[in-house]
Amino acid sequence: MTSYTPPTRDLQFVLQEVLQASTAKIGGYEELSPDFTAAVLDAAGKISAEVLAPISASGDTEGCRLENGVVRTPSGFKQAFDALRDGGWTGLDCDPEYGGQGMPYLLQTAVGEMLCGANHAFSLYHGLTHAAYTAIHKHGSDQQKRTYLPKLVTCDWGGTMNMTESHCGTDLGLIRTRAEPRGDGKYDITGEKIFISAGEHDLTENIIHLVLARTAGAPAGTKGLSLFIVPKILLKDDGSLGERNAVTCTKLERKMGIHASATCVMNYDGATGYLLGKEQDGMRAMFTMMNEARIGVGLQGLGQAVLGYQNAAAYARERLQGRDVSGAKNPDGPADPLIVHPDVRRMLMNQKSFVEGARALILWGAKTVDEVNRNGDAAAEGMISLLTPVIKGFITDTAFDMTVQAQQIFGGYGYIEETGMSQIARDARIAMIYEGANGVQALDLVGRKLSADGGKHMIAFFDLVKGFIAENKNNAALNDEFLTPLKLASKDLQAATMYFVEKGMKNPNNALAGASDFMHLFGHVCLGLMWARMARIALDALDDKTVDPAFYETKLATGRYYMARCLPMTGAHLARIQSGADTVMALPAEAF
Amino acid sequence: MTSYTPPTRDLQFVLQEVLQASTAKIGGYEELSPDFTAAVLDAAGKISAEVLAPISASGDTEGCRLENGVVRTPSGFKQAFDALRDGGWTGLDCDPEYGGQGMPYLLQTAVGEMLCGANHAFSLYHGLTHAAYTAIHKHGSDQQKRTYLPKLVTCDWGGTMNMTESHCGTDLGLIRTRAEPRGDGKYDITGEKIFISAGEHDLTENIIHLVLARTAGAPAGTKGLSLFIVPKILLKDDGSLGERNAVTCTKLERKMGIHASATCVMNYDGATGYLLGKEQDGMRAMFTMMNEARIGVGLQGLGQAVLGYQNAAAYARERLQGRDVSGAKNPDGPADPLIVHPDVRRMLMNQKSFVEGARALILWGAKTVDEVNRNGDAAAEGMISLLTPVIKGFITDTAFDMTVQAQQIFGGYGYIEETGMSQIARDARIAMIYEGANGVQALDLVGRKLSADGGKHMIAFFDLVKGFIAENKNNAALNDEFLTPLKLASKDLQAATMYFVEKGMKNPNNALAGASDFMHLFGHVCLGLMWARMARIALDALDDKTVDPAFYETKLATGRYYMARCLPMTGAHLARIQSGADTVMALPAEAF
Repeated sequence: MTSYTPPTRDLQFVLQEVLQASTAKIGGYEELSPDFTAAVLDAAGKISAEVLAPISASGDTEGCRLENGVVRTPSGFKQAFDALRDGGWTGLDCDPEYGGQGMPYLLQTAVGEMLCGANHAFSLYHGLTHAAYTAIHKHGSDQQKRTYLPKLVTCDWGGTMNMTESHCGTDLGLIRTRAEPRGDGKYDITGEKIFISAGEHDLTENIIHLVLARTAGAPAGTKGLSLFIVPKILLKDDGSLGERNAVTCTKLERKMGIHASATCVMNYDGATGYLLGKEQDGMRAMFTMMNEARIGVGLQGLGQAVLGYQNAAAYARERLQGRDVSGAKNPDGPADPLIVHPDVRRMLMNQKSFVEGARALILWGAKTVDEVNRNGDAAAEGMISLLTPVIKGFITDTAFDMTVQAQQIFGGYGYIEETGMSQIARDARIAMIYEGANGVQALDLVGRKLSADGGKHMIAFFDLVKGFIAENKNNAALNDEFLTPLKLASKDLQAATMYFVEKGMKNPNNALAGASDFMHLFGHVCLGLMWARMARIALDALDDKTVDPAFYETKLATGRYYMARCLPMTGAHLARIQSGADTVMALPAEAF
Repeated sequence: MTSYTPPTRDLQFVLQEVLQASTAKIGGYEELSPDFTAAVLDAAGKISAEVLAPISASGDTEGCRLENGVVRTPSGFKQAFDALRDGGWTGLDCDPEYGGQGMPYLLQTAVGEMLCGANHAFSLYHGLTHAAYTAIHKHGSDQQKRTYLPKLVTCDWGGTMNMTESHCGTDLGLIRTRAEPRGDGKYDITGEKIFISAGEHDLTENIIHLVLARTAGAPAGTKGLSLFIVPKILLKDDGSLGERNAVTCTKLERKMGIHASATCVMNYDGATGYLLGKEQDGMRAMFTMMNEARIGVGLQGLGQAVLGYQNAAAYARERLQGRDVSGAKNPDGPADPLIVHPDVRRMLMNQKSFVEGARALILWGAKTVDEVNRNGDAAAEGMISLLTPVIKGFITDTAFDMTVQAQQIFGGYGYIEETGMSQIARDARIAMIYEGANGVQALDLVGRKLSADGGKHMIAFFDLVKGFIAENKNNAALNDEFLTPLKLASKDLQAATMYFVEKGMKNPNNALAGASDFMHLFGHVCLGLMWARMARIALDALDDKTVDPAFYETKLATGRYYMARCLPMTGAHLARIQSGADTVMALPAEAF
């Protein structure tokens, strides 16, 4: 059985020292004093470790059950969900007008890492509800907001996103679900949606489905899609729960992981729906949710990588196997702990340097979202448009790899379900797929974001890297180990960008064939930048005779590992990108 | 549900064109005429696709059950096992003196790829039996051989390897299972073994366990270990089955994958055992099995990568989603097939170029084993000592990654169990762990094999690469696309080797910290060499106006992809290796 240790110290380091939240000039950040964020993180860590983590393994084993249209979540899920609601965690960053606490997204994200790290499957129930809240908050009428938001904020009601149909996942233009206007402002919604997380469950008294559908006469493709609010239980005029709507869960999927999350086939049989936003404007409204959801999925990947790392590190310290080649470290015992072995350390350092770097990157992204939403900062909007696919794609790909390395440290014990290491990898695997498979993230980055607004957001990113390097160029302690590798990696990223500009014009496949490598190359440069920043802070703290030197020395050593051992991947990614599309596209389809 | 297509054409290409089996000067190879190997491959392909593959998914779902000490394998396994036995497949490369067919290991390996590709879990039952056969054949007395081998050859009886105990996996020196001599030449075996594949099942009438145990008074560590034959059912003097021995399966493990393989906790409670080989010589006898088993595990990885690739390619051709950016390819349909998208092709080409390269490498390794066993070739023995950890470690690591990419092409459908893509990845995962976790393979390669006999085997490998390049240097069609990248990759491998020689002397951790990267770097150079060889053959065939130009053109295009897109990884591995052990080992254990 795995255990979860809330990484509150490191989250606080990123919030307060790296991102300097309490002094950032962003609306609402004045509340984020170090004492306040520490208290919030401690409380969130407590519920994560003590309430959510203990039902993760049992949730995996039990899974969800569908009985006569009713989905039963695993034992303890209802109690844990109520505890989360009672603690007020579900409305942390929601609008106070509807009962939320109005905290910045930054704090929500820091808390979210722990909630989903402790129990990935569980986190989808409140996570999807939050996504529905966001869509209605941005696109709903005043009446819709008054009707739904207070209940979604408290998770008295759950929420879902209904996009996928059996014949279309990525290509939403193929959606067939129909919406027929009844003439009274309501619509009949008819169709089948699949892969609907939290589509049906026993945690809330109602579920508010957001459903993409096509109105009669609307054009083909994504342009013809509208978004509808379809409550599981219709509301009476006084707002109380009335009749059951014509929406049912007809099947639960059997999946590789996140067994405790109900992944539903949903049947809409002339269900009553209410238009959210305007007709044929459904994709825009849906994407409001998607961007937030994509950062959230990156966070899920990180959460599982952290869980894997913690358990692998503990096992490596305890499990006695073999001897240190440089001399026994546990001479009185039958063998030395696994952690003495360089190859075990390599895997642990891969994980540690990734999770700490990824944590900084995601929280930087979250702060950038706050700059957009709270300060109306256009430059921040450009930056987060670039960072979102990197956070989703690069982090979830790498996080999965890290959970596999964590599992590997357990040897044979990693493969049996009893230790829980398999579950971590199986759960983490989904994050590479949902909310846009990672290939689609790469396509979004290279095909859309990179060249948006004349490429100025990418230039802004390079300026950020150059600025940091210039600012610190006289810092000898930083130079060789951090700035030089960061500069080299950033040059690889520039060369890749230039390659796309030059060759992508002639043949877009030259860019698309390198999209995934570009996303990873970009991710490494982002983490390199995060590590250089963190190293600078660590060096300053040590110069200032911090009372906690071990924390900062560990931070520096971890950063050195990332720069020396992980950042060299940029060269391989660049070489692949620069090899172009020819070898990728050479074969006719029938040759495969 | 996945389906399996026997890759007989490509296996035949490797056997006859790449390895020129029918004209190789190796004892027994004179039988391997093209017609003969084609017929054997066809027949093996037929049983793989028609008998073994159809019970793979149901085997995963049903798993094995332990009922009152009896293990029930999933539906259809007994019938399939009997079909395999009736076809004579279990004794293909076994000694004719004991009923085998005496075929080279090369042919056994080619057939084995299909048997384990079609059904990984199933293949462990006959695979472990074969390993037990090998150990008894090499180390048994004449009487033991006469007693056990004929039954193991036909798989009337099964076999197992019992090494691991709960407190020791890799570190066998910690084994506690005791062997007390009874004075009549027999021993009482007492202890608990875990992770015993095929430890108990209903496929055979008896199971011959090979058990590592420590005799009274034997020294601590691996030196004190002896290997024992412990039959599940004792034999009467006339060789017929007698009483049940004191060995029982007390638990089946619940695992991430290979659910249909019974992974048993075995309890030996004063069971009757017979010494195999000499006392305190158990490790040597066990390693006889291990080397063969390690190549076999590499083959399992390849088999699952092939299965994943085939199903992903089929899905990518059928599933309609999105449009080709360079113009619709299926204008009359609602969308183009997935295969038009460069990022989907990238993943398919990764898989295709890996599986064909890995197939050539493993079969080259198998031929090398035949050179050792049939020709007593010492140089071949040196070469296979290097190739074995690469085949096991590099191929299973990469194969798992490829099954994950195959799964990714299915999007959300890859995550649900219904399509079978999750099973492929879950099954493939074990190959990185058992028969020596891949970190141990890397350690074996760098710590033992690399420097063995003054490093002359490694020099022989480099000579092979250089020889091929020199021999073909005037071949313009080969030069830029194959020889140049091979030369660069080989230089990276040389630089890594030199780094270990220089820095590993001072501090062995400098070598050990780079061991896993070295194994992968070596693997890439091996596959680069395989591809260069195959490209040469393809070019020659096209020059000679082959009747099957499509096959050779596809081969060339696939090779070009590998050289351009996969081989650049050698630079990243080298950079990591040359960064040394400092960043890897910097942190104290408590800092993790």
